[in-house]
Amino acid sequence: MARIIALQTHDVRFPTSRTLDGSDAMNPDPDYSAAYLRLVTDAGDGLEGHGFVFTIGRGNDVQVAALRALEGHLVGRDVERTLADLGGMWRELVHDSQLRWLGPEKGIMHMAIGAAITALWDLRAKREGKPLWRLLASLTPEEIVDLVDFRYLTDALTRDEALEILRAAQPGRAEREEQLLARGFPAYTTTPGWLGYDDGKLARLCREAVADGFTQIKLKVGADLEADIRRLGIAREVCGPDIRIAVDANQRWDVGEAIRWMEALRPFGIAWIEEPTSPDDVLGHAAIARAVAPIPVATGEHAANRVLFKQFLQAGALSVLQLDATRVAGVNENIAILLLAAKFGVPVCPHAGGVGLCEAVQHLSMFDYVAVSGSTDNRMIEYVDHLHEHFVTPVEVHKGRYFPPEAPGAGTEMHAASIAEYTHV
Amino acid sequence: MARIIALQTHDVRFPTSRTLDGSDAMNPDPDYSAAYLRLVTDAGDGLEGHGFVFTIGRGNDVQVAALRALEGHLVGRDVERTLADLGGMWRELVHDSQLRWLGPEKGIMHMAIGAAITALWDLRAKREGKPLWRLLASLTPEEIVDLVDFRYLTDALTRDEALEILRAAQPGRAEREEQLLARGFPAYTTTPGWLGYDDGKLARLCREAVADGFTQIKLKVGADLEADIRRLGIAREVCGPDIRIAVDANQRWDVGEAIRWMEALRPFGIAWIEEPTSPDDVLGHAAIARAVAPIPVATGEHAANRVLFKQFLQAGALSVLQLDATRVAGVNENIAILLLAAKFGVPVCPHAGGVGLCEAVQHLSMFDYVAVSGSTDNRMIEYVDHLHEHFVTPVEVHKGRYFPPEAPGAGTEMHAASIAEYTHV
Repeated sequence: MARIIALQTHDVRFPTSRTLDGSDAMNPDPDYSAAYLRLVTDAGDGLEGHGFVFTIGRGNDVQVAALRALEGHLVGRDVERTLADLGGMWRELVHDSQLRWLGPEKGIMHMAIGAAITALWDLRAKREGKPLWRLLASLTPEEIVDLVDFRYLTDALTRDEALEILRAAQPGRAEREEQLLARGFPAYTTTPGWLGYDDGKLARLCREAVADGFTQIKLKVGADLEADIRRLGIAREVCGPDIRIAVDANQRWDVGEAIRWMEALRPFGIAWIEEPTSPDDVLGHAAIARAVAPIPVATGEHAANRVLFKQFLQAGALSVLQLDATRVAGVNENIAILLLAAKFGVPVCPHAGGVGLCEAVQHLSMFDYVAVSGSTDNRMIEYVDHLHEHFVTPVEVHKGRYFPPEAPGAGTEMHAASIAEYTHV
Repeated sequence: MARIIALQTHDVRFPTSRTLDGSDAMNPDPDYSAAYLRLVTDAGDGLEGHGFVFTIGRGNDVQVAALRALEGHLVGRDVERTLADLGGMWRELVHDSQLRWLGPEKGIMHMAIGAAITALWDLRAKREGKPLWRLLASLTPEEIVDLVDFRYLTDALTRDEALEILRAAQPGRAEREEQLLARGFPAYTTTPGWLGYDDGKLARLCREAVADGFTQIKLKVGADLEADIRRLGIAREVCGPDIRIAVDANQRWDVGEAIRWMEALRPFGIAWIEEPTSPDDVLGHAAIARAVAPIPVATGEHAANRVLFKQFLQAGALSVLQLDATRVAGVNENIAILLLAAKFGVPVCPHAGGVGLCEAVQHLSMFDYVAVSGSTDNRMIEYVDHLHEHFVTPVEVHKGRYFPPEAPGAGTEMHAASIAEYTHV
């Protein structure tokens, strides 16, 4: 009988602030980082489970301390039994009442649980020899709903309703898997749009994005209205009228300010306005959504848990749902969020970029397409072209589309050499 | 020129789970703990700033790691200048973009900032020779609003509106301070109501609460409906018809379940239902509030920040606001929350108990009475009778009322001997 025998952690930080990659109106100088977790077993098969929380620098050590706090729950466990009941494992971790007090279900402790859960999925997928998206898409509807904790969701989505959604998508699974392998999943790129880039670099990167086959780009906005108007003008001119241009304010505005600012940007043809205000402000987003319509409001990368997403959907406060691979409690909670989105008929366009977020989150969108929503309409995964080289299975993005990974695992494993080189001291 | 020369931390844990003090439907076996912070200066006056985050055991070490992450912001600072602009200090800490990513503005990192801010207030109050409540109540309306960050609040409360509220309360300040000193501030007690106590202990503690002069008690509910009905029957019989009995579900229910459960408890005359569901679920609380009216809904001890409180008030989702001394980012954010409550005309009945929460939060209610809401109507501070002996200035609660502390400081200083004895190893 194999057991988990060690939980190892690493404080990995990349000095991205030097080049202003990742700079936006709220985050002028991020150092893209990962609080990284490895679960080691005595199975003798050489397989480990890897997971991480994406952070932007300072405090990554605190996030690592939170990973270590899970050791008592994980080390010593029977591997087979644990991996066979990841719904039960999720409940055990999230409902540890003493740890729960530290959120509850939000912030550092909740994200740490997410990394552990995803590391367990990585291990399970490697042991089954499948990429995570295919493993999830091979589960029965009953197995999938068993992964989800419906606590706090039942006024919007019950277990039976979730089962119905999954059963309705069953007949087309094989066909959609073929489609996915042949054509990939749509992507959009944020690479041109960082606030710290000068106009020349913006124009050049817009041109390259169009040449690379992307049909949507995204620009950071919100620090300076004049500059936003100038930069949107450049982007629209370079891209032409047929490329979708989304904007992202990274929580910079109050409600009234968001509405006024978007009136000024409206003439440029805005694909969506992302994170116009505090990620906790469901009612504020709803007010903004009513005022800026028909421009869609997008949010989610900082939504702390499924209860926030439930409310955003109930209130009509978002029409593009941007889940994140490491903000909530891992794969299981993201499945709950995918089911909520399907119930409300809202497209999911995951947040990515960062460190390894593209590698991780693509599995969720691909699973969504094959087994949940059954659609790629209005669905895209964010793509940012940096730090992929540090991952064992970097994303394959060609002509503006993510091509499905075939390597076993959840995509979350970083090269040992990268970990060693960028470990923070 | 004096500087802050050290940030010292302590992982303090009391083994309360042995007696089931503090046991409720979600927290069966808490070990009441404090992630404790001391700010040391070279002023040579022997004065230190003390603050803490209340937790319930496991993970207190992670909370301590988050306190340590603030060292770079605090150590080396000029004491006078820092204490003269605690609004600026709050913004610097909360808007450190790299640390902010770990919430944002919620969970472990946000609570750590709260402990640091409160420790600075403790230091300032000691240096000015005043208890915190009186120090705050001696500030001008302009000085008070300068402490508040109105970001994300302006659709509900502007700086000018806050100034108006504070100016309207100015004339009566001296008279209310006298009233407070003479009569104290109303309290209610949760001591009888822990879920782990047997019926005999419940009856005895109810009897003692009434004899001690309390006019409201609170019972934990939500684990077992039959037991809740039995326990409420005992409490109502012992207390008689004139004592208010509130109930607290500690987030145990989904929306529909909360509504059904409260229908069954309604005949006992319920003063309020506290935390019926997830503390993030503004819309869920609003639905419950509509269904259980006229029973008031109370919540707030787990509301992560001022943006949550804003929405609870906007949505009519609570009618008793239960701020907590260590859940949000300290004194400054709680002032914002008091101002929001005053704007919406909702009474504040702080959460207390835990470790040192009574000692800390009384200052906020007393400041509210003297300088903000100007009223004690329907306002009470929670009181739980444990762990006070570990604090240098334990609360003075007599005949069901908190009597104002006169000792300089924020009430947050623990005896060195208690820290030493209960430091977790």
